[in-house]
Amino acid sequence: MIAVHLENGRVSIKQRPRPRRPQGYALIRLNCAGICNTDLELQRGYYGFCGTPGHEFVGEVVEADTARLVGRRVVGEINLACGNCSWCARGLGRHCPNRKVLGIVRQAGAFAECFVLPERNLHVVPDSIPSEHAVFAEPLAAALEVLDQVRIPRGASVAVLGDGKLGLLVAQVLHLHGAEVHQFGRHVEKLRIAQAVGVKVGVVRKRLPVAAYDWVVEATGSSEGLQQAVRIARPRGTVVMKSTVHGLVPIDTARVVVNEVTLVGSRCGRFEPALHLLRAGKVRLSEMISARVPLAEAPRAFDLAAAKGSLKVLLV
Amino acid sequence: MIAVHLENGRVSIKQRPRPRRPQGYALIRLNCAGICNTDLELQRGYYGFCGTPGHEFVGEVVEADTARLVGRRVVGEINLACGNCSWCARGLGRHCPNRKVLGIVRQAGAFAECFVLPERNLHVVPDSIPSEHAVFAEPLAAALEVLDQVRIPRGASVAVLGDGKLGLLVAQVLHLHGAEVHQFGRHVEKLRIAQAVGVKVGVVRKRLPVAAYDWVVEATGSSEGLQQAVRIARPRGTVVMKSTVHGLVPIDTARVVVNEVTLVGSRCGRFEPALHLLRAGKVRLSEMISARVPLAEAPRAFDLAAAKGSLKVLLV
Repeated sequence: MIAVHLENGRVSIKQRPRPRRPQGYALIRLNCAGICNTDLELQRGYYGFCGTPGHEFVGEVVEADTARLVGRRVVGEINLACGNCSWCARGLGRHCPNRKVLGIVRQAGAFAECFVLPERNLHVVPDSIPSEHAVFAEPLAAALEVLDQVRIPRGASVAVLGDGKLGLLVAQVLHLHGAEVHQFGRHVEKLRIAQAVGVKVGVVRKRLPVAAYDWVVEATGSSEGLQQAVRIARPRGTVVMKSTVHGLVPIDTARVVVNEVTLVGSRCGRFEPALHLLRAGKVRLSEMISARVPLAEAPRAFDLAAAKGSLKVLLV
Repeated sequence: MIAVHLENGRVSIKQRPRPRRPQGYALIRLNCAGICNTDLELQRGYYGFCGTPGHEFVGEVVEADTARLVGRRVVGEINLACGNCSWCARGLGRHCPNRKVLGIVRQAGAFAECFVLPERNLHVVPDSIPSEHAVFAEPLAAALEVLDQVRIPRGASVAVLGDGKLGLLVAQVLHLHGAEVHQFGRHVEKLRIAQAVGVKVGVVRKRLPVAAYDWVVEATGSSEGLQQAVRIARPRGTVVMKSTVHGLVPIDTARVVVNEVTLVGSRCGRFEPALHLLRAGKVRLSEMISARVPLAEAPRAFDLAAAKGSLKVLLV
């Protein structure tokens, strides 16, 4: 079978033996996968990653211990938790200190014809959800995590900074939740996607308003975003941090302290509400797909995903 | 009368006319004042401060609109709120965008024989509290603010980073609240004060434990403290930020995001619970007084307060 290989910033295609399926795992044949910013960061050398990346996927179960899974279309949670620690006992395997992470930490990823994942990580995809939408389950769960972490009242004004893939999902999710979402970004075409569902958008050309929002979601993916988010937040306001920027980020902590701002780090989320939202068909996803590229042409797909103005690039 | 004057980092004593008392204000004769780290920061040039500093005080009301205040011993909240905005309406005058701040922002401070403050800022000090304890009302309120902002369960392990004045107050307050407090600092003698009330203390010589506490209070006053606090916090843990460090502070935001840590900026607090605690006499304060210096010798007092190993320096 073929698999994408990432090493020293170079993406290539390798011939690999089909992976052995450990007990409790399913062997999955890839249907469709998404390239995430994290994949691009791995390419830039973060985590010293070497191997097969990929963690946003839809696939078909080829082999599993549980017979009823075989032949089903699935998506899967990316954290492979140990199942034995206090975090796992609390249902927070996403924070298990012993976890592997699909295509990121010590677990070969989904950018391959076949790969394995524990059965308990899998969610069967309802027939009504097309694969090109189901592949958004993982980033959509990450967007929904915001609502699991902070209680944003319906009707509240929320600023979303950034108009990339995650920013657009967060803006849509918060809009569906009933918040009045103001999204700020640099790309008119990207912002149009959120605007079409009713999000108020603003193209960032100059300074953003200061101390204007009780709720701010920082999803710029840049190291300047957090400073802007802290400035735009009202005293006693909350900034949700969605960008994983590597290295040290400078922040004006005196402003955080004097204004008693709360900053909430936010990462992966639960798949159940994401699948629920996908089934309802209320999130605009088709416009977020910039390109569909065969798995065998993954190097080109990575280039497309990294290009300015690009949104989701799918490997099919 | 004499007043301390701070300009371009130089502390001096000036002869000044007694201030005029506006309507709604009380004229207060200083009894005892405390030098805070913020005063030392003003001396270092932050806020471009020029004038009379001082915001921790106990004084006697000389003149007031309200007759029953005259002759009483008072402490006072430092934020002079406008009383008309939505913040003031919510009882959060501490965040009023139009506020002046005693001895910090556009309001002559308490390091003077006499000064004025709105009557509504004043709290009468019960007779049972000596002035040398009452002068801690303001920093003690700031320490108690932590408990107003986050709900720390009794019995929970809390790490307090820093053994300065605020760190020692925070550690004592959290210990009295019922938390199991572990305080980390660099000064054996300072840590002994907290240890005497039952706080577990550790002298920081090497690396602190990693991902070990659900609750961390950062009160080091240094720009490295926040990074340490984020490292010591468990996934889904909370870091309360008490240090106002000027300029940009570098932080590993990826760790905050991946571990979904919450950071809570924390500043001034309510005086009522602080006076309640002072009346109960359960906070060890006498050991925290490093020196008592006459107001007329304020330059020397500032030098003492800035000296290594120093805790609270009082102007009397």
